[in-house]
Amino acid sequence: MTRYYEDYEIGDTREFGERTVSKKEIIEFAEKYDPQPFHTDEEAAKDTMFNGLAASGWHTAAICMRMFVEHMIDDASQGARGVDELRWIKPVRPGDTLTAESEVVDKYPDEDNPYIGYVDSRLTAYNQDDEPVISWIGLGIIKREAAAE
Amino acid sequence: MTRYYEDYEIGDTREFGERTVSKKEIIEFAEKYDPQPFHTDEEAAKDTMFNGLAASGWHTAAICMRMFVEHMIDDASQGARGVDELRWIKPVRPGDTLTAESEVVDKYPDEDNPYIGYVDSRLTAYNQDDEPVISWIGLGIIKREAAAE
Repeated sequence: MTRYYEDYEIGDTREFGERTVSKKEIIEFAEKYDPQPFHTDEEAAKDTMFNGLAASGWHTAAICMRMFVEHMIDDASQGARGVDELRWIKPVRPGDTLTAESEVVDKYPDEDNPYIGYVDSRLTAYNQDDEPVISWIGLGIIKREAAAE
Repeated sequence: MTRYYEDYEIGDTREFGERTVSKKEIIEFAEKYDPQPFHTDEEAAKDTMFNGLAASGWHTAAICMRMFVEHMIDDASQGARGVDELRWIKPVRPGDTLTAESEVVDKYPDEDNPYIGYVDSRLTAYNQDDEPVISWIGLGIIKREAAAE
């Protein structure tokens, strides 16, 4: 079932995940995209402000995106314009298991195009101790029902 | 030379990069983290709003992070609290060559900890036609000179 712009309500929440993050993938991602010692070198990381290996914040975001995509596969999503208020709240460690939830925080039609609308959703991911590790507000673009006619 | 909080001035700009983005890595990243057809399947992407294969926005961000890390290796960086106003301005296509610049837009000391301060920098990346493709404001944490004493 396609979920159009009109089907979203402010306050709607959804839960999704989960995903366990391995040391191997933390290091692999960081070696490619964020090669700082606290993300790539378990020994060197002990002497940094992270006090041990932690996932790149961009890696944590990418993992959450994967969980989100698996969850929203039937949506009328047209991608996203961007993200506001992305916060890395707590380090993600090897072996952490993440789950996530999203809440619709705003919606508004496009002023010119009758076929799309905007749905802003706050995504928050938690570790296995229910501590939030990352959050952001995604600025989604969603097809309107008019696009189906 | 270490670059402390005190060494940053609002308005300072720096340029860095470059990096050419291959079709292979666009698909590899997306298959792991953002498996939507317009990021993973060249044929299927033609019938989407992207009109062809485009990098995941999170992949573009990660590529910019890599360029940034290579550039800031001598900084007193203590990581970042997060990112504001991340915008995916234009699709990144296979073969695009990205460059980036950052500009210090704000700085302020921590109210309690005399050893760190906050430096907010707007990062913007451009393609080979000088069109901006992504931008965000990174909320950096930087050691103060007091931390060296």
